[in-house]
Amino acid sequence: MATDQIDGQLMPTERTKLRRNYERGSFDREALNEILDASPLCHVGYILDGRPAVLPTLHWREGEHIYWHGSSASRALKNSVDADVCLTVTHLDGLVLARSAFHHSVNFRSVIIYGKATKIIDPDIKAKKFENMVEKFAPGRWPALRPMTAKEVKATMILSMPIEEASAKVRTGGPIDDEEDYDLPIWAGVVPINSVMGEPQPDPRNMAGLETPEHVLKLLP
Amino acid sequence: MATDQIDGQLMPTERTKLRRNYERGSFDREALNEILDASPLCHVGYILDGRPAVLPTLHWREGEHIYWHGSSASRALKNSVDADVCLTVTHLDGLVLARSAFHHSVNFRSVIIYGKATKIIDPDIKAKKFENMVEKFAPGRWPALRPMTAKEVKATMILSMPIEEASAKVRTGGPIDDEEDYDLPIWAGVVPINSVMGEPQPDPRNMAGLETPEHVLKLLP
Repeated sequence: MATDQIDGQLMPTERTKLRRNYERGSFDREALNEILDASPLCHVGYILDGRPAVLPTLHWREGEHIYWHGSSASRALKNSVDADVCLTVTHLDGLVLARSAFHHSVNFRSVIIYGKATKIIDPDIKAKKFENMVEKFAPGRWPALRPMTAKEVKATMILSMPIEEASAKVRTGGPIDDEEDYDLPIWAGVVPINSVMGEPQPDPRNMAGLETPEHVLKLLP
Repeated sequence: MATDQIDGQLMPTERTKLRRNYERGSFDREALNEILDASPLCHVGYILDGRPAVLPTLHWREGEHIYWHGSSASRALKNSVDADVCLTVTHLDGLVLARSAFHHSVNFRSVIIYGKATKIIDPDIKAKKFENMVEKFAPGRWPALRPMTAKEVKATMILSMPIEEASAKVRTGGPIDDEEDYDLPIWAGVVPINSVMGEPQPDPRNMAGLETPEHVLKLLP
């Protein structure tokens, strides 16, 4: 994880092209991937009736592409196909309490990706993508599931976008106050925010005797 | 909190006008406010160079208006003034593991607000908004802080939008599988995701003898 110390407020990430030369830019790309992979939640911006709209949805990454999905009837997805979109992933890691209101901030990690969304058409590729998605969210679960039907594949749309025009931004650490404010008797510090998986809750309709499988237990911290 | 059971995937929220008659619609409004107030993180969609962009930032609510802020030099904020925006708040509450890939889902709460963003101009109103913001994020902290300077007020932009064209969506509960799949020996259930505040980390540069104040301890669960 990058440990750049960014002073000030939660600011928009500048739109910058990732360096094509990954030898040199490999740290950027690794930090970016780590942020993307740390949560399935993303927010996709798209244009709806000429206005910006923001859809909360799930994403997964395969190499240098990012994917998201939804119902084939989804207005948000239909409006995103072959259109400009912006996919943002953000983790809020803590409140940063400074000695002045102005220097209050938050610790966070975020990635913003701009691009055009493409729809996966080929049913075989689509079927494989569903497997990849499940395996990203719960590694080891796919083989345990009732296989997907052609109808289900058809009812679902998958969109993808190359991770090319993207940037990551990270703030960590404590408050950065005006030098003269350090002499004030004001408590400053960080209140961390942690997102954690809790105890699995079995479906009451599970067949008798089914134990929580290894792949579910592995999701826990 | 609404306990609507929504089958299927994380879908875009339909754009619907909140009923003006809050006597009848009061539950909607209360549930919506509760979702907004549960986290300071939001994602604001706006148009940048003709393309959609999604800015992660902090929001706070005062009655029937939502507010966010940033540097007066922020390109994202400058592009949002008097323009159409979409502000989305989402809490990811759990992974819903079903017996088929298709019925996998997530538990979540989200609010989507559409509208035009207005910039707060009056410096006195602005100054009061900063107090309101700090008091929302850490109630009781404002009086303890070094007062804001006119320069700081000027360096920061506050945007607001009425909560009028907005909708809330909630999924709770376990998986909903195809009836015939309940007889399969597949473990199904929910893995909850919890966001919790951790132990406050005092700034090493705090003056000697400063104890963690009551208003900070109150942030903890």
